[in-house]
Amino acid sequence: MTYRAPVEDYNFLFDHVVGLEGLRATQRFEDASADVTHAILTELGKLCEEKIAPLQRNGDLNGAYLENGVVRTSPGFHEGFKAIAEGGWVGISADPEYGGMGLPMALTAAVTDMMSASCLSLQLAPMLTQGQIEALEHHASDELKALYLPKLISGEWTGTMNLTEPHAGSDVGALSSKAEDNGDGTYAVSGQKIFITWGDHDFGGNVCHLVLARLPDATPGVRGISLFMVPKLLPDADGNPGERNGVSVVSLEHKMGIHGSPTCVMQFDSSKGWLVGKKEGGMAAMFTMMNNARMGVGGQGIGVADAAYQHALAYAQERKQGKTPENAEGTIIGHADVRRMLATMKADIFAARAIAVSNAVAIDMATATGDKAWKARAALLTPITKAFGTDTGVAVAEMGVQIHGGMGFIEETGAAQFSRDVRITPIYEGTNGIQAMDLVARKMMDGGEAAFALLDEVEEDVERARDVFPRMARDVWESCESMREATEWLVSQEDMQNRFAGAVPFLRAFARVLGGHLHLKAALADRGGAREKLARFYIQRLLPEHASLLTHAQAGAEDLYALTADDLAV
Amino acid sequence: MTYRAPVEDYNFLFDHVVGLEGLRATQRFEDASADVTHAILTELGKLCEEKIAPLQRNGDLNGAYLENGVVRTSPGFHEGFKAIAEGGWVGISADPEYGGMGLPMALTAAVTDMMSASCLSLQLAPMLTQGQIEALEHHASDELKALYLPKLISGEWTGTMNLTEPHAGSDVGALSSKAEDNGDGTYAVSGQKIFITWGDHDFGGNVCHLVLARLPDATPGVRGISLFMVPKLLPDADGNPGERNGVSVVSLEHKMGIHGSPTCVMQFDSSKGWLVGKKEGGMAAMFTMMNNARMGVGGQGIGVADAAYQHALAYAQERKQGKTPENAEGTIIGHADVRRMLATMKADIFAARAIAVSNAVAIDMATATGDKAWKARAALLTPITKAFGTDTGVAVAEMGVQIHGGMGFIEETGAAQFSRDVRITPIYEGTNGIQAMDLVARKMMDGGEAAFALLDEVEEDVERARDVFPRMARDVWESCESMREATEWLVSQEDMQNRFAGAVPFLRAFARVLGGHLHLKAALADRGGAREKLARFYIQRLLPEHASLLTHAQAGAEDLYALTADDLAV
Repeated sequence: MTYRAPVEDYNFLFDHVVGLEGLRATQRFEDASADVTHAILTELGKLCEEKIAPLQRNGDLNGAYLENGVVRTSPGFHEGFKAIAEGGWVGISADPEYGGMGLPMALTAAVTDMMSASCLSLQLAPMLTQGQIEALEHHASDELKALYLPKLISGEWTGTMNLTEPHAGSDVGALSSKAEDNGDGTYAVSGQKIFITWGDHDFGGNVCHLVLARLPDATPGVRGISLFMVPKLLPDADGNPGERNGVSVVSLEHKMGIHGSPTCVMQFDSSKGWLVGKKEGGMAAMFTMMNNARMGVGGQGIGVADAAYQHALAYAQERKQGKTPENAEGTIIGHADVRRMLATMKADIFAARAIAVSNAVAIDMATATGDKAWKARAALLTPITKAFGTDTGVAVAEMGVQIHGGMGFIEETGAAQFSRDVRITPIYEGTNGIQAMDLVARKMMDGGEAAFALLDEVEEDVERARDVFPRMARDVWESCESMREATEWLVSQEDMQNRFAGAVPFLRAFARVLGGHLHLKAALADRGGAREKLARFYIQRLLPEHASLLTHAQAGAEDLYALTADDLAV
Repeated sequence: MTYRAPVEDYNFLFDHVVGLEGLRATQRFEDASADVTHAILTELGKLCEEKIAPLQRNGDLNGAYLENGVVRTSPGFHEGFKAIAEGGWVGISADPEYGGMGLPMALTAAVTDMMSASCLSLQLAPMLTQGQIEALEHHASDELKALYLPKLISGEWTGTMNLTEPHAGSDVGALSSKAEDNGDGTYAVSGQKIFITWGDHDFGGNVCHLVLARLPDATPGVRGISLFMVPKLLPDADGNPGERNGVSVVSLEHKMGIHGSPTCVMQFDSSKGWLVGKKEGGMAAMFTMMNNARMGVGGQGIGVADAAYQHALAYAQERKQGKTPENAEGTIIGHADVRRMLATMKADIFAARAIAVSNAVAIDMATATGDKAWKARAALLTPITKAFGTDTGVAVAEMGVQIHGGMGFIEETGAAQFSRDVRITPIYEGTNGIQAMDLVARKMMDGGEAAFALLDEVEEDVERARDVFPRMARDVWESCESMREATEWLVSQEDMQNRFAGAVPFLRAFARVLGGHLHLKAALADRGGAREKLARFYIQRLLPEHASLLTHAQAGAEDLYALTADDLAV
């Protein structure tokens, strides 16, 4: 595969659609000038195209495996990770005090996107390390920070997150791993964790596990969970990796995709650990890490979608089938339905990417200004970025297979790999169903304030587009009004089941409307150009989906629960 | 996996929704009484549950492989195929004169559905044989019929179809395989064919290849193609398999799914073949086979969907995560979004299955009465059955993975296999894009007559439901009117690109409307029961999709072709 990093797309988004001006006006991010962001994106694109993308097939064909208790990684992955680490990409948004670059999350979004497109399996290692860095920055003691952050930021060590247990998946509060106070400032952590991404590797350095466990007599449920740092190798007095901790890899999962990413069953046997944050403050710390990871997983979906799109586009430009008078060359891109699929893929990738960047900028603005409204905006957008980004990843990879016809089902072409790899993204870091529940419940606890504020802004922008693009502006404006009405209905529902019964279509409709807004802005900045044409396609053909989604979203729970488990089994 | 065959669903469809009464009133099918069809379905269900379903995982884990030029099949597949053959299931709809049961296609639809649900890889062997039987019945000489039909119908021999070549996939007319007259009533067939399903096996008997090739000085393109019967082993004077023909398997494809089905690259080197039908009559004969196969592939999608649904339902009833006041037991089926997914799966399976059965009944009525209107009805429904059945297969298997959460991505649970296996169905036997083009072009050459006749019938049925279910009747009636308007717009478009640009959403909208009609009929026959509740769910939440699809369908080609290949590459 020849992957071309979407450097220009990010430059365009930053300069014309989402706008980093506000960010650049803050003290925190004043160094992120256009020159700087352009240069960084160019460098990133080069790394991904030249060093990372060639590893992608290796990861699938020669997946990670367990050998005498040690995870052996796919050929080239060690060198690939070294290139990422040495370029400073692990710590791109991390605190400069500990060696990070302190750049905005908007750039991290681009890193996630392009690295996932190049090699999703490998990208998970830096992404989880970034999540751990952020959790430590916010919650760890100065001592732990000083010991771990420089090594994680430099990529010398990697980080994992250990939440899931066989009977505690989405329901984290059901976990039963234990921690006992050793009386010397350390804890003995015991239990089994499953689905631990990059739980071990042969890159050298250290593997740092953040583990959720319960102290004796802990409060039941999710409130009684504490977080511990449990390194694979115990740091010696100089902070270098020393003797083995009681941490082992029991087995690796045999998965549908991302074979290059070792998914471990981890065993902790009175492993030495250090408390991160307060006792029973585990969930707060974990949420920092999870919110970061949710943004990241959305970006993974977008990245794989882009790679699958480029792959399918190249095939459609080469493959000849069925010359017609309208399509004298006979390449399949000339056939209306193939072109419809390609346009759908491209239009949805743009929408998902622009939403993710908006989300990242909101996080950055919240960091830079401390403004509650930006925090609320970021919180509102995170489940949308995650769910719409990953649904787009699955749908686009799917269309990529379809464009390849029979060849799409044959593993050699690589189209199937995108589809198998990306399939995990709507599941992990909170399934997309859980993202939707988060959106309609937790993120609407403000009575819809953040949602209405966003819709107001969308409508203001749309008003400015009316003279130039009256029809597109009207369509986006009307979709925005429908979204407002649906949101009003939603927040008026006190029975949460009524919200949950339509949560997934509600979230998707929201993404559709935001996509319409962002496409319209892109069209304004590229009048008569490719982006205007893509916006017309999106607004005419894809945006209308919001209407049927909102009908579904407002159906309430009654008909759903009328269908009993017995009815479903008939 | 414990698969439960949908015997009751078929009994209900035959007795109350699609109605075999008309069929039973014909001389041709007067023996297919309710007692007979019930008994056959029960027998079929037993075979699928007990003998076939246990083979499904084997096929995935121990796929077919090539050993010294011979295809070795998955463990248990030979015994499975024998059970199918001995039960008479290969020849269920075949001509009794040659040993077939002569039963309606409506029953074959049930066979395809249940066998595909049990083991898609194995089911392909009888399905392709059935297609070959039908092609021979319609087009072969009496001599060929007498020699081949009894052996194919009994399952002693199997059949394949050889169309595709590396540069001739959807564009069959581009094929370059050659046939030369040997002057003794036989032909020498040479060429390479790819994607040949069950191109070889180790079941014994014979493998009979129907091969498309060109005679010398043939008319260019699709009109110049002839069809040949090329057996792996040349029948001797008694009709028993004799010496080897020049037919060999070059390699097997490494596929995303259906590992148990050997997908062969076949080489024909001056292989001895017999002309089937007239010279240059290959496409007509092949279409008989393909139409049968298109119905069949739609049924495959429905079958796998049902198996994936049952698998996910069982998991949702067992898996405990997140007790709430509304869901005291905490099984995930109690969560609104999981229930929404299950209800969607079940409602769409019913819609797709009922459409397929309507299609089969139309074929049967055409066979029994010779009535052109029934033929046109069957022709209209075939692309809808194929595309909606297989899209439902993919979407339902996808939701099955999602309901399993992280476990869905782990191969051991089997949820992923359904998703990988069924992925081929929207591609082979004409991609779903090609089905949609067939619907909006070839099947509308009558100016929409068959489509309008069907919509008229739907509206008559809906009128009869108004008193009982006023709201549901109104919704289905309105969707039907929208469909009528869209069809009127469609047939008025002389520029075919305008039709093609929205063909896929047009087809899907048609399926949605027909699904509404069939659900409504089911509700009438089960007032207050599970089927009424499912109909309410479908009509309230899934049917509304038709509106946004029809907006898309009527957008025309202008905006699509405005996006040039260069624009798509930006």
